[in-house]
Amino acid sequence: MTDKNDKELVFLPLGGTGEIGMNCNLYGFGGRGKRQWIMVDLGVTFGKHSDPGIDVITPDISFIEKQKKNLCGLLLTHGHEDHIGAVAHLWPRLKCPVYATPFTAALVRGKLAEAGLLDEVPLHIIEPDAHLEVGPFVIDYICLTHSIAEPSALAIEVEGARILHTGDWKIDPDPVIGKLTEVDRLKALGDAGIDAIICDSTNVLSPGRSGSEADVGRMLQDVVCESTGRVVITTFASNVARLTSIAAAAVKSGRHLCLAGRGMHKIYQAARETGYLTQFPEIVDESDAGYLPPEKVLICCTGSQGESNAALGRMANGRHPHLTLEPGDRVIFSSKMIPGNETEILALQNQLAQIDVEIISPNGSDIHVSGHPCRGELADMYEWARPRSAIPVHGEHRHLIAHAALAKELGVAEPCRVHNGDVVRLAPAPTEVIDAVQTGRLHLDGYIMTEGGSAALKERRKISYNGVVFVAVPIDAANRLAGQVEVELVGAPTDDGMVKLTDWTLDAVERAIPSSGRLTPERAEQDISVAVRRELSRRWGKKPLVIVSFVSV
Amino acid sequence: MTDKNDKELVFLPLGGTGEIGMNCNLYGFGGRGKRQWIMVDLGVTFGKHSDPGIDVITPDISFIEKQKKNLCGLLLTHGHEDHIGAVAHLWPRLKCPVYATPFTAALVRGKLAEAGLLDEVPLHIIEPDAHLEVGPFVIDYICLTHSIAEPSALAIEVEGARILHTGDWKIDPDPVIGKLTEVDRLKALGDAGIDAIICDSTNVLSPGRSGSEADVGRMLQDVVCESTGRVVITTFASNVARLTSIAAAAVKSGRHLCLAGRGMHKIYQAARETGYLTQFPEIVDESDAGYLPPEKVLICCTGSQGESNAALGRMANGRHPHLTLEPGDRVIFSSKMIPGNETEILALQNQLAQIDVEIISPNGSDIHVSGHPCRGELADMYEWARPRSAIPVHGEHRHLIAHAALAKELGVAEPCRVHNGDVVRLAPAPTEVIDAVQTGRLHLDGYIMTEGGSAALKERRKISYNGVVFVAVPIDAANRLAGQVEVELVGAPTDDGMVKLTDWTLDAVERAIPSSGRLTPERAEQDISVAVRRELSRRWGKKPLVIVSFVSV
Repeated sequence: MTDKNDKELVFLPLGGTGEIGMNCNLYGFGGRGKRQWIMVDLGVTFGKHSDPGIDVITPDISFIEKQKKNLCGLLLTHGHEDHIGAVAHLWPRLKCPVYATPFTAALVRGKLAEAGLLDEVPLHIIEPDAHLEVGPFVIDYICLTHSIAEPSALAIEVEGARILHTGDWKIDPDPVIGKLTEVDRLKALGDAGIDAIICDSTNVLSPGRSGSEADVGRMLQDVVCESTGRVVITTFASNVARLTSIAAAAVKSGRHLCLAGRGMHKIYQAARETGYLTQFPEIVDESDAGYLPPEKVLICCTGSQGESNAALGRMANGRHPHLTLEPGDRVIFSSKMIPGNETEILALQNQLAQIDVEIISPNGSDIHVSGHPCRGELADMYEWARPRSAIPVHGEHRHLIAHAALAKELGVAEPCRVHNGDVVRLAPAPTEVIDAVQTGRLHLDGYIMTEGGSAALKERRKISYNGVVFVAVPIDAANRLAGQVEVELVGAPTDDGMVKLTDWTLDAVERAIPSSGRLTPERAEQDISVAVRRELSRRWGKKPLVIVSFVSV
Repeated sequence: MTDKNDKELVFLPLGGTGEIGMNCNLYGFGGRGKRQWIMVDLGVTFGKHSDPGIDVITPDISFIEKQKKNLCGLLLTHGHEDHIGAVAHLWPRLKCPVYATPFTAALVRGKLAEAGLLDEVPLHIIEPDAHLEVGPFVIDYICLTHSIAEPSALAIEVEGARILHTGDWKIDPDPVIGKLTEVDRLKALGDAGIDAIICDSTNVLSPGRSGSEADVGRMLQDVVCESTGRVVITTFASNVARLTSIAAAAVKSGRHLCLAGRGMHKIYQAARETGYLTQFPEIVDESDAGYLPPEKVLICCTGSQGESNAALGRMANGRHPHLTLEPGDRVIFSSKMIPGNETEILALQNQLAQIDVEIISPNGSDIHVSGHPCRGELADMYEWARPRSAIPVHGEHRHLIAHAALAKELGVAEPCRVHNGDVVRLAPAPTEVIDAVQTGRLHLDGYIMTEGGSAALKERRKISYNGVVFVAVPIDAANRLAGQVEVELVGAPTDDGMVKLTDWTLDAVERAIPSSGRLTPERAEQDISVAVRRELSRRWGKKPLVIVSFVSV
C-alpha cells in the first residue's frame, strides 16, 4: 500500500468546477502527506449583485498555502482573468516560481506592477511550445486556439503517468492570429497513452462547432463597409484576433481606428510588446476622434457587458469626455451576454436606442463566436487524445454532468465528476476521488482579503434590505441611565412628514428602559433590541439590525 | 383655439413606456385644465438587485391623484401583475370605480382582500364583451388572446374620436381556453376609422409569429408521456391555458396531478371560481404526492424564475416539506427566462443538476410560447385596424423605436414615440405630444410607499458596499467630552486577528477630538467623520457612511 501510494499522481481542483471562473488546479505526485505539487492557473471571478462591496473573488488556497514549500511552481495556460486574475493577490502567500508564455506574461506583469510585486515574483517567460521540468513533473506546452493569444494545453508527465490539461480551447480552423491547434502533438500524446484529460466544459450543452474568428472578421468587415455613420464595435479587449479583424475592417472601409477604454489600451500595449498587432493601422486618439467626420471613424471599445463606467457606457450616457454618439451611428456588439449581465446590457442598449443609434447584436455566430469547444469539437479532442479517464472542469454542475456523459459516449472508460476540493487519483488506475480537502472562496473587500461569506458581507447584505438602527445609551459607573438616549436610523424611510420612524423608535427605546433607570447591560441590550425591532416591524414592516452602544460617562 | 381644445382627446402614459412592467395609461377628454379622465390598467414592476429592500414598484400617480374627482374610472385589460398589481396599493389615493372581467376581477379581489379593502372598492365585474359608458367615454371590451384568461382590448370612443387600446395580446389560432381573437370586431373598428392604436411592443424585435398554446400543450403531453420518473413542470401560474394543457398531459399519461406553490393555488382557485379548469382532474395534495410512485406523479409548480423560496426552489434545495426530487426525475421549464433572472435560474438548474435531475428547457417554441405579438401578428393587427396613428407602449425604448418604424412600414401615417408623462393629443389630428406632466416611480419599502430613488434606498445601497460607522460622543451641557467615545462598525471586516479596524477607528476619532475636550458639535461632527473616512480608506480601501451622535449627559 505504501509503495503504491508513493507513485500516486493526483488532481485537486481548488476552483472552477461547479462554478464559473476562479480556475485553480493542483497536480500532486508522491505518497500521501509527502506529495510535491504544481498549480495550473490561479484565476478570479467577479462579485455578483448578491455580494455588495466585493469586486474580486479568489479560490481559498489555504490547503497549498500551508505547505507552500511543496509547491514547485504555478503554470499559466493563458491570460484571461479567470485564469490569471488572482496571481497578484495570492502569490505573496505562495512565493513559488510562475511560468507563462510571452503574451500571458505581459498581462501578468501589468498586474504585478500595479501591486508593487514586479521585482519579487520569479516570472519565467517561456515559449508557446516550451518543454519544462518543474519538480518531478515534465511539462509540455501545446498550442491550441481560443479567444485570446497564446492559449496552451499542458501535457504533464510524471514517472510514466501522462495527463492532458486542456485549459480553455476551441478548434478554430482560421484563428486570424497565432498557430493552428497542434493536432499532431495531441494525436501523438494519444498514441503514447493518456491517463486522464482535464477538459473545458463551457459549451458542452451546445451542439456543432463554435465557428471561426476569420468568419467573424469577414462579417464585421461587411457590416462596417456598408455603414454610413459613426461605427462603434464593442468586444472583449483580450481577444487580440478580434482586434486584428476590427483593424482590418477599419482599413478596408477607409475609417480611422480609435481604441477607447482602459482595458483596450492595456491589451493593445501587451499585444504590441509581444509581437502581435504589428500590421495595425495608426491609432487615432480618443480626444481627436470626435473631430473626424462620423463616416471616417471606427471606435473599438470596452463596455460590452453594460458596465456604465466603461467607454461605451459613457458614450451612451453622455459622460464620455471626448466621444459622443448621434442618430445614424451604429453600435455593434461583437460579444456575448455573459449570464448575469443581461439587465445592465439591456439598460445600455436602451440608452443607445434613446439617442437613435442603431444596435447590431450577434445573430448566431455572425459577428461573435465563442472561444470554447462545442460538442463537435469535444468529439475531435477525445478522438485525438483517447484518454483512459476524463475529468470535466471549467463549468457549472450542469456542464460537468453533460460533459461526463458525453465523454462516456465518446468511449472514455472512466469519466469522473469532481467537485472543488476533491483529491482525485489519476494514476495508477482507476481514476477516482480518494480524499477531499477544505476549499472555499476568498473575497477581496476593499484591500482586505476575507473568507467568503464573511460576517461583514452578510451584515452588509442584511442592512441593504432592512437598514440599521443605532442606539446610544449613556450610563454611569453604577449602570444607571446618565443622560439622553440617542437613536439613529440608517436606510429607513424617515423623510416623509407622515412617517416618524425615528420618534417612534426613540419612544420604544425609552419604554424598554426600566423606570428606575437601572440597567443590566446584557439584558438592556436585548430588551432595547427587541423593542426597536417590534416597533419598526409594526410601523415599517421591517426588522432592521439594531446596535446598542452603552456610553460610559 | 379654445373651441378646439375643448374637443381634445389625449393619451398620457404614467408607466410602461420605455420600461418593463408598471403599465398605467390615462385617457383624457375636454379642454386643458378641465379634462375628464379614465385610467387603463395600474400595474407594478418588481425591484431589481439595485433596489435592495424594495419588492414592489408602482407608477407615481400624483398627477391624477391631485385631480381624482376628474377620474371617472379604472378599466383593467387583464390580470397580469404588470397591469393590476398596484390597484390594492394605490386605489386609496384614487377612490374611483374599477371595471374588470370576471377572471381579472377574481385576482383583484384576492389582492383587495389581503389589503383589507374588499368592502371599500367599487369593483364592477363586467362581461368580456362589455359595452360601458364611463364619463364621456364609450368603451367596448374586445376579446383577444394572450397568456392569461380574458385578455381584452378596449375600443374607446368619445365624440367621434375612436381609439384602440390593445392591452397585451397575440394571435393564437388555438388558445386552448377562451375565445379566439375577435377579428371581425377589429376589422369593423378599422372600417369605422381609428384615430390611434395604443399597442403592445414586447416582441416587435422578433420576426414571425409567437405560436400557439395548443401546440405547446401537445408537445408537453408527448414529453410527459415518454417520461419514466417523476415529472415536474414549472410555468407562470397565471397561464390558465397552460395549466389546462398540463392537466390534460397528466390524464393522458396516467399521472396524478399535484399543484405546488402559493401562486399556483391562487390562480387555480380564481380560475375555478370563474368557470375555467372545470374539466380538471382531481388534484393530489402536496403532502400526499410524496407517497405516490414517481412514475405516477406530475407536479405543476411555481419557481420558473429561480426564486429560491418558490416550490421548485425548495424542491431543488431540499427544503420542501413534502416534495423531494431524485435521480431520473425530470424538470420541465415551460417558461422563458425573464431578463434579469438568468443568474437565479441557472443557479436553480445547477442545484437540480447536482441531484441528477434531467432539465428540459424550451428550444424555440416547443414547450413555451410568448403571449405577445411578433412582427407577423403586428402586421395583421395593423391591417385590420388601419389606424391613422400608432403609439407603441409596453416596451423598453428599443422596442418602442422598432415598433414605430414597423408601424410606418405598415402604412400608419403618424407613428408617434412617447415617454411616460407625455400628454399626446390623439384627436383631432395630428397625433402629437402637446404637453408633459411629472412622472416617476413609487417604491414600496416594507409597508411604506416612498418616492422612487428615496434617501432611504440610496443610503441602503451605499452601506451595502461600504458599511456604516457609528460614533457616540458623550458631551456635557458645556459641550465638553464627558466620558468614553464608543464606535461601532457595521459591515466592515473586523473578525480577522490581523485587522483591527475598530481600534484604528477609535484612535482616529480620539485624535480628531481637541485635547481640551471642548467641542463645537457641527465642527466636531465634520472632523470626526473626515478622520474616520480617511483612516478606513487607508486601512480598508473604503469610505463608509459615518454617523456621529452626541449623547447629552
